[in-house]
Amino acid sequence: MKRFLDLADFERDEVLSLLELARRLEKQPEPRALAGRILGLVFFNPSLRTLASFQAAMARLGGNSFVITPGAGSWQVETRPGVVMDGAAAEHVREGIPALAAYCDALGIRAFAAGKDLASDLAETAFNAMASLIDKPLINLESAVNHPCQALADWKTLDDLAVPRAGRFVLSWAYHPRALPLAVPAAALHMAALRGMEVIVLRPQGFALPDAIMERARRAAAASGGSLRETAEREDALAGAEVLYVKEWGATECYGDSEADARLRSRLTGWCVRDDWFTIASSECRLMHCLPVRRNTAIADAVLDGARSVVQREAYNRLPVQMAVLHRMLKP
Amino acid sequence: MKRFLDLADFERDEVLSLLELARRLEKQPEPRALAGRILGLVFFNPSLRTLASFQAAMARLGGNSFVITPGAGSWQVETRPGVVMDGAAAEHVREGIPALAAYCDALGIRAFAAGKDLASDLAETAFNAMASLIDKPLINLESAVNHPCQALADWKTLDDLAVPRAGRFVLSWAYHPRALPLAVPAAALHMAALRGMEVIVLRPQGFALPDAIMERARRAAAASGGSLRETAEREDALAGAEVLYVKEWGATECYGDSEADARLRSRLTGWCVRDDWFTIASSECRLMHCLPVRRNTAIADAVLDGARSVVQREAYNRLPVQMAVLHRMLKP
Amino acid sequence: MKRFLDLADFERDEVLSLLELARRLEKQPEPRALAGRILGLVFFNPSLRTLASFQAAMARLGGNSFVITPGAGSWQVETRPGVVMDGAAAEHVREGIPALAAYCDALGIRAFAAGKDLASDLAETAFNAMASLIDKPLINLESAVNHPCQALADWKTLDDLAVPRAGRFVLSWAYHPRALPLAVPAAALHMAALRGMEVIVLRPQGFALPDAIMERARRAAAASGGSLRETAEREDALAGAEVLYVKEWGATECYGDSEADARLRSRLTGWCVRDDWFTIASSECRLMHCLPVRRNTAIADAVLDGARSVVQREAYNRLPVQMAVLHRMLKP
Repeated sequence: MKRFLDLADFERDEVLSLLELARRLEKQPEPRALAGRILGLVFFNPSLRTLASFQAAMARLGGNSFVITPGAGSWQVETRPGVVMDGAAAEHVREGIPALAAYCDALGIRAFAAGKDLASDLAETAFNAMASLIDKPLINLESAVNHPCQALADWKTLDDLAVPRAGRFVLSWAYHPRALPLAVPAAALHMAALRGMEVIVLRPQGFALPDAIMERARRAAAASGGSLRETAEREDALAGAEVLYVKEWGATECYGDSEADARLRSRLTGWCVRDDWFTIASSECRLMHCLPVRRNTAIADAVLDGARSVVQREAYNRLPVQMAVLHRMLKP
Repeated sequence: MKRFLDLADFERDEVLSLLELARRLEKQPEPRALAGRILGLVFFNPSLRTLASFQAAMARLGGNSFVITPGAGSWQVETRPGVVMDGAAAEHVREGIPALAAYCDALGIRAFAAGKDLASDLAETAFNAMASLIDKPLINLESAVNHPCQALADWKTLDDLAVPRAGRFVLSWAYHPRALPLAVPAAALHMAALRGMEVIVLRPQGFALPDAIMERARRAAAASGGSLRETAEREDALAGAEVLYVKEWGATECYGDSEADARLRSRLTGWCVRDDWFTIASSECRLMHCLPVRRNTAIADAVLDGARSVVQREAYNRLPVQMAVLHRMLKP
Repeated sequence: MKRFLDLADFERDEVLSLLELARRLEKQPEPRALAGRILGLVFFNPSLRTLASFQAAMARLGGNSFVITPGAGSWQVETRPGVVMDGAAAEHVREGIPALAAYCDALGIRAFAAGKDLASDLAETAFNAMASLIDKPLINLESAVNHPCQALADWKTLDDLAVPRAGRFVLSWAYHPRALPLAVPAAALHMAALRGMEVIVLRPQGFALPDAIMERARRAAAASGGSLRETAEREDALAGAEVLYVKEWGATECYGDSEADARLRSRLTGWCVRDDWFTIASSECRLMHCLPVRRNTAIADAVLDGARSVVQREAYNRLPVQMAVLHRMLKP
């Protein structure tokens, strides 16, 4: 496996095999598997779980890692092609990324959505521009519209908890003070579809996921025996749900227009997940969220601290699934 | 040993045993003792010695570490319970700390005093709230009113220099442009008391250490054959002193009121330790300070650069004592 | 080898021997050579290649490293001697640097030029003040007027590409929106001179390199069978050139006067290296630059992306040459 950029790049069986490897590494540690190997981590955006879990994953397998944060300790980096660099950025990704790739055996890059032009973000313009510069193994640490490591950890979480393959998986929008990227909802959607679940996207008017993301997930669902639909009605979505996967994202109707987005979301503070959301769900219904989450804004304390919440298991699972990715990618 | 949060949690013999282990590891390195083990380090506040010495300590024992700095590379983190998170913080410690604990074998946390409410800081409200979230081995990298790693390093320094157990240990306030926390004075006080020394706190009016800190140290002194008193008179304190331990801290009389504190300290710029402070001390009298220190503000160049100063030995001793803590905590 | 601070501290044969070791480590990895060894890295200024390549170099040799960034995660640090520290800096280098040295087997320090007083920068006042504080092995990660790791990587790059020893090496000034330090031009100049090349400095009026730097390089050239001269005429310099080494630097005529510097450079935006610069050069002529570089400001896209550019090889070579330095310095 040379690149881990998108769960959609893999067949269902390949994902299952990665998850099996993750479980094996949980039970049978391989503390020298990646001895001498180096992972470079580049963060254009903040990180807590991704940074710590990737450094830990390399260490657990006997390897090492380094961290570069452009603009904080390292140079501010330009990503646009062809620009006359007379502003704040001292370095261009065209120089910086290949140089970093030269110092490691695999590179991980985090680069959030620019959030201005939906077509450009859907095309992963910035991430792909960097990916095209290097031939080294590469891991997507969250790009404009993808977060495959989170999706893989979430899949393992569903398996760990024996959530039925055909169970109802509701991906619900939640309130946040401002527009957040589509990366996690897109990745979670695709994951649940590829797992073969009955996937329902619950979101207010104006926040429908882009057609390209929905279409791709629909194809994955069809191939895996699952299904996908969307609704704005909570009761319609949550009846019998096995999983409520909560995420905040920006209005797609007015993508890149922060004022229009603010107007739309100002009426939606009621989309803070509370206990009563689960009344008609399965008695076993789990609450999932990739974290970080704003308490009492997106999800109420009582829900996050309640028995339904499996957000800590999702966070923990970042470690074994990333160990599996690194093992498959770098084990000699 | 599951937690290293406060020197007062340990019997005198347990501390002596840790110091013996530190000396053994100095002489007989164990470069594979913690192979495969991971230490997570979370810094809510700046660090130089603590950061470097803990990373070095793990490396010297064959282990690894990662560093998370909320608000700088990682998300800004909320610590208050029950709050509606619609401000700058994207993550709550209730999610962040357990997630980080999941990626390591022991977690270290630095969280300075809020400096607003003395009772809350004395109760270690913020640190204890985080500690209560996890079951992993935990190390206090400096909390509101404690710094046990510094205290243990200082004890070893006193032993290294053969400072008599019953010698006079003067903890003196020194000038600083603004109020600093009580963590180091409280920890140094307790350490010297538990070691069995004749401890004297020398401080101006308004800067007495809180009763709870004094009382606890007085009990430790009594149990160890030492003593504890306080004074505002330099001559009273320093006569025959074996150690002058210098530290800056905020006015406890008006804790949390920065204007009142500023008025009080504005008259105290003379509390910059100079050579003439040592006139009536023991000829062997040592100068100690935990660092960082403001030269010619808290301590004059001539003193810091003179033969009495053992601040570098204190700094160096962070490494072996922390190796001992980690070894006892994590060695299989 | 106790210190690696300046290529000029070494005989030509010693440099050749380091380069030979670098090539050997490229072919025959020694993944346990520095097991248990720790490198401390202190960055007073931003870094991308130096940070990543030194951490990678230690890891490739089985060792470890830690990173301290004063003012970002660590205390803001004062460097001036004798100052009353009542400002922003909480720590003085006199305390901080020896403490960090105590936690590692070798220390690397980056401290750019203050850029105010040329004599002070030429004397490496700040770096030498720090170097004088410790007895540990020490590496210059770029100081006021030196960057020996870059120079060593550049020498290896010339060797890798079989650039003739007696070939013409043109060090050319290029435009940048503001004054940059003399460290890289000084180091590259000395390297090429010591290698024995025909070195020509091409720079506009007002940007001549200081006499001390030129004189030292002239002596190295003489001893190695090379030569050194300077010119402001591009045609004079580039005829038959084997290497065009591009670098931006501040006006030495008005060093420390940013307004005068800005006036001088405002007329020099034409010093952006384009393809037509190479018309009269050797057909094989290489483009070198230490990076980071501002595209289309200092060097045009077409040149950086063209076949002449070896900037990526220069960046890559940081790793093996630094492995050689560390190996020679720290291998038991």
